[in-house]
Amino acid sequence: MNIIDRLNKRIIELKAPIVVGLDPDIEKIPSFYFSDKQDTFQGVCEAILNFNKDIIDIVKNYVPAVKPQIAFYEMFGHEGIRTFEQTVIYAKSQGLIVVEDGKRNDIGNTAQAYASGHLGSVKLIHCEVRSPFDVDFLTISPFLGPESLEPFIETAKRENKGLFILAKTSNKGSGLIQDIRNQKGRSVSEELALFIDEKAASYKGVGGYSPIGAVVGATYPQEAHYLRKLMPKSLFLVPGFGAQGGTAVDVVPCFNPDGLGAIINASR
Amino acid sequence: MNIIDRLNKRIIELKAPIVVGLDPDIEKIPSFYFSDKQDTFQGVCEAILNFNKDIIDIVKNYVPAVKPQIAFYEMFGHEGIRTFEQTVIYAKSQGLIVVEDGKRNDIGNTAQAYASGHLGSVKLIHCEVRSPFDVDFLTISPFLGPESLEPFIETAKRENKGLFILAKTSNKGSGLIQDIRNQKGRSVSEELALFIDEKAASYKGVGGYSPIGAVVGATYPQEAHYLRKLMPKSLFLVPGFGAQGGTAVDVVPCFNPDGLGAIINASR
Repeated sequence: MNIIDRLNKRIIELKAPIVVGLDPDIEKIPSFYFSDKQDTFQGVCEAILNFNKDIIDIVKNYVPAVKPQIAFYEMFGHEGIRTFEQTVIYAKSQGLIVVEDGKRNDIGNTAQAYASGHLGSVKLIHCEVRSPFDVDFLTISPFLGPESLEPFIETAKRENKGLFILAKTSNKGSGLIQDIRNQKGRSVSEELALFIDEKAASYKGVGGYSPIGAVVGATYPQEAHYLRKLMPKSLFLVPGFGAQGGTAVDVVPCFNPDGLGAIINASR
Repeated sequence: MNIIDRLNKRIIELKAPIVVGLDPDIEKIPSFYFSDKQDTFQGVCEAILNFNKDIIDIVKNYVPAVKPQIAFYEMFGHEGIRTFEQTVIYAKSQGLIVVEDGKRNDIGNTAQAYASGHLGSVKLIHCEVRSPFDVDFLTISPFLGPESLEPFIETAKRENKGLFILAKTSNKGSGLIQDIRNQKGRSVSEELALFIDEKAASYKGVGGYSPIGAVVGATYPQEAHYLRKLMPKSLFLVPGFGAQGGTAVDVVPCFNPDGLGAIINASR
């Protein structure tokens, strides 16, 4: 089953277009998760993994997906990355779809290395093995232009994976780059939306939606309304709800009339 | 000594404004580097580390800095990240300055997690330890706007580290976003240059240069000429020389009349 059909099926079953963030903050993890190695990367990472497993056990019956933000694992170096890998494996074993928030971006064989490493398969000397991360969806940034996105899109198509391409982010300063209009009168976000919609048209599930999605912040409902029209077949990953000021009313424009088309991030 | 003064001193001593890429491609590493574990992540990563050490031993007398591209390590998961960490430690022990090419970008506490993890120090439960990467310079992407760059800049200032902010990349499609002009008639690259120059003014070494630098591709010499004027005190990290078509003449506009101001990437 195409990953987007699987995600939409779970959203409908659970009546929950929600993805739960797994953004570990060790100051907020209860002390009983920590062993006497709490002042080493290894000890902290063991606590994070056990905490994540408990979160996963609770949320798996209520939401279709989790979204680990890799920055909060990467900051602990290779021990943190191992914990990220183990978190992904456990979440998938419990039936959850995993959206990695990595906002990766590069060109050529570097972009391909990211795509292979996070979504695809990796060549060793005589064989090819599954990527060490092997997440279902990955967020990527478009700053370097269309050809920086192509290796991710091609890999996603081949591997039945999905992407959320940053189109309009939820933060206050997002407009400096994303709102500038080109000579055709289109904003950067709108140009990206047209690009995403074209790619989405060539890779769809049986339900008509595409796993080539977009990140569209809850804090800009007017833009979201217009971007929704430009990308009718793309799922929106919607940050900015709650802590950043977006309300339930603000996220309405991110959805299509069929009640699908968006997944709201709940992280804090 | 401020990291930018140290880098410029080495550039002058070696007469080499060059950074050597450490972008391991296992198909190009000679077979004698591989043990019988060559078809595991661990075996491949051991070969990469030993190969990198040999490269470092050769180039350390000729160039001031190396630039590992983290995508080529990350694709091997936590084993690859450990190899990245070990490569950084070895390069620094041999007197080289390390520029991590990561193009990270996010906002708020996520951006801070990246900045702490790559450049600064990381809080555990009762103590704070050096970041597991602890590189000298990091490349970052500005797509999410000015506030996404601030945590990196503040961390760099506090920790005597440097940044290269993507301003005009070397690839063909860079213009889709980077060349669009705002209502003031300035391109995204130019707006970024003004932002970088303002930040550079507040954080300089004794030689007058700032560790807040910019990535400016060798393939757009006209833009480089103008960006040079907008950012007189920032070092340019210049990709695109050689394989991507940039020539020795093309990189001239990246330098200031004092012969400094740019470091050319040689990766392939």
